[in-house]
Amino acid sequence: MAAKGRRNEIHKIQPNGLTVSELCIGTGIFGMQTDEDLKAKLDELKNDYRKGDATAASRNSFSNFTFFWRLFAMAIIGSTVNRRFVLAKRPESPTSPASRDLFELQSVDVPELADGEFLVESHWMSLDPWIRGTMNGNRSYQASVELGDVMRALCAGRVVVSRNAAFPVGTPVSGMLGWQDYAVTDGTLIRKIPENAPLELGLNLLGINGQTAWFGINDIGKPKAGETAVVTAAAGGVGSIAVQLLKAAGCRVIGLAGDDEKCEWVKSIGAADCINYKTTDIGKALSVLCPDRVDVVFDNVGGAMLDELLLHLNTNARIVLSGALSRYNAKPEPLTNWLQLHINRATMKGYIFLDHFDRFDEADTDMMRRWERGELLYREHIIDGLENAPDALSKLFDGSNRGKLLVKIR
Amino acid sequence: MAAKGRRNEIHKIQPNGLTVSELCIGTGIFGMQTDEDLKAKLDELKNDYRKGDATAASRNSFSNFTFFWRLFAMAIIGSTVNRRFVLAKRPESPTSPASRDLFELQSVDVPELADGEFLVESHWMSLDPWIRGTMNGNRSYQASVELGDVMRALCAGRVVVSRNAAFPVGTPVSGMLGWQDYAVTDGTLIRKIPENAPLELGLNLLGINGQTAWFGINDIGKPKAGETAVVTAAAGGVGSIAVQLLKAAGCRVIGLAGDDEKCEWVKSIGAADCINYKTTDIGKALSVLCPDRVDVVFDNVGGAMLDELLLHLNTNARIVLSGALSRYNAKPEPLTNWLQLHINRATMKGYIFLDHFDRFDEADTDMMRRWERGELLYREHIIDGLENAPDALSKLFDGSNRGKLLVKIR
Repeated sequence: MAAKGRRNEIHKIQPNGLTVSELCIGTGIFGMQTDEDLKAKLDELKNDYRKGDATAASRNSFSNFTFFWRLFAMAIIGSTVNRRFVLAKRPESPTSPASRDLFELQSVDVPELADGEFLVESHWMSLDPWIRGTMNGNRSYQASVELGDVMRALCAGRVVVSRNAAFPVGTPVSGMLGWQDYAVTDGTLIRKIPENAPLELGLNLLGINGQTAWFGINDIGKPKAGETAVVTAAAGGVGSIAVQLLKAAGCRVIGLAGDDEKCEWVKSIGAADCINYKTTDIGKALSVLCPDRVDVVFDNVGGAMLDELLLHLNTNARIVLSGALSRYNAKPEPLTNWLQLHINRATMKGYIFLDHFDRFDEADTDMMRRWERGELLYREHIIDGLENAPDALSKLFDGSNRGKLLVKIR
Repeated sequence: MAAKGRRNEIHKIQPNGLTVSELCIGTGIFGMQTDEDLKAKLDELKNDYRKGDATAASRNSFSNFTFFWRLFAMAIIGSTVNRRFVLAKRPESPTSPASRDLFELQSVDVPELADGEFLVESHWMSLDPWIRGTMNGNRSYQASVELGDVMRALCAGRVVVSRNAAFPVGTPVSGMLGWQDYAVTDGTLIRKIPENAPLELGLNLLGINGQTAWFGINDIGKPKAGETAVVTAAAGGVGSIAVQLLKAAGCRVIGLAGDDEKCEWVKSIGAADCINYKTTDIGKALSVLCPDRVDVVFDNVGGAMLDELLLHLNTNARIVLSGALSRYNAKPEPLTNWLQLHINRATMKGYIFLDHFDRFDEADTDMMRRWERGELLYREHIIDGLENAPDALSKLFDGSNRGKLLVKIR
């Protein structure tokens, strides 16, 4: 996979040649007409929809048929099958791998919409480390997923049925929609994805990865030109964005990654150097590469790696606690060098991108501008099919993913 | 020792009935006159000086005799003995106690003053944990003290000879003057103590203790009314001020201290409760006393105590890393619960009061106002005589001090 600045959206058509959204809209409008008529009439709508012109699609589909549309759409929704993964049992321990048997794939009907709600058909699902944390049943970033509940995940898709004027049919959105084909939402914490961006960008630069990097760097890292920054898991979905934002801020960036191929890629996106932590003594390498010590640590790992980094802090260093991949290691990895925080007047701060929902526009505007200019490179590791999501989750923890881990639902 | 809001200054007279400052001034002015004449003439000056009227004392002493005064003052200074402690050898390890044999008491002449310099006669010396850290020879808060160098300490005293117009004779000052009777300085990092405050307040509320509490709470802790705050080493010089500032900010404050007497005192100055950490299971006690978890941790200890506190953080908690008394424990105490910083979006920040020298006026003005209103109580543990300083230092680490540890030099 080569690094790329943009990625064309692949809009996969369902086996019957129509997406459920089209079926809903079409059947709603044209009621008992034949399939042939339906398909012909739908061409216009499909064009609007494909172009991402949600307003036109919505206007056409609703027009004077709102009453009938609702009536029939509800009938269709009721008979549309929603595949979803629920948590069947808890992992043996907070650090044990999330094996396939912990998940149960169910097929259920799509529920009816209440006023103010809309139905989103997910196209992409984001696999992120925090998901593993919600499976244990203890206090974590997010509330725990209860047994039998749908697994949580951020997804990007389009509105296919709507009883919410702010989110008309066709609107590209992202949000916490879960491990499933369809999700009903009232719009809480749902974001619209710009029409000129591929849907999956709403999970990456304009989603959890971009926002995690952006808020961590702007609110905590506060990089200044000429400073030295170190990014751990620098080839990952968040780390690679952090490398580029820190570089753009004028920092000399050193990455840490788990193999030589990843290190080469990290250097190709702007890092002055990248340490393969599996084959290199990190402490010695940092002493050589950061003779003036480290001003900003953007850490996705925690544990022993963070502990080593504490020994290289410069005065007034800022440590962005972005992620804690090491928490999933079987052996606990305490911080022995915490005194360095005193000595170096350092700040170490945890944060969660979702806390800043009210400032997402600010972050997204900046990220979109950089993306449009081709200043932000990324790569995606795509898993095809919702059914393969459980096996893919562990890739985040064994380091076998290459870039942002996405499940392509359709 | 009872808690008290103010403390009268004890101005101890030297065995010959004159302080060195008086000898300097008097001898300078009156040259070869007899001791009887000298003493009579000095009465007026002494009154000015005792009243703290530095301007009058200075005006009287300088008047038309500046040239002669300088000539003779230099002669006197040259023959004035300065007792000082130098570091004779390094401790066995960074955690071993600072035994008496590590220090050497020397008697040396007071050096001559260059233009812009002045001589301070120290009355009080502050014993603080950071001093131990400068003895090891490794990177710490402050540069290491080299073997043979004067031990570092903050002291409060008065200017006794001056070639710096900004610091005339009689000016009450505090600063990094070292373990000695007299120090020559050009005024760098020297603070003037308000005339209406006892000298030693410049080492306490208006010095390292007050400023450490004030900047930690205002810049990092940022307490809000109704929040819960926990202060470790709450009966100590810094901790007890932190308790009162947090209480004044509207927090419910829980203290941790090492014996029941200390706990009672901590409660008497405003803590809702105080945990004797030597006889109580801290974790259980915190769960009971802080059912809504902890928003602000003002920590003077670090190590295992801080590690336990991490388990009780509320969302968006702030941990003020004020001190690290546990670093002097023989057994290293790592932080195993660092993941809680992520989970709770917590901030943990080290700082050193001296970094904020340019904002000391702001802190001192606020602290002075509170002290004048009787809102800040403190207690002092006074060691009599510079010669007893080495043995007293360990009190900071074995918990046997009661309040601010001061050495009374004269």
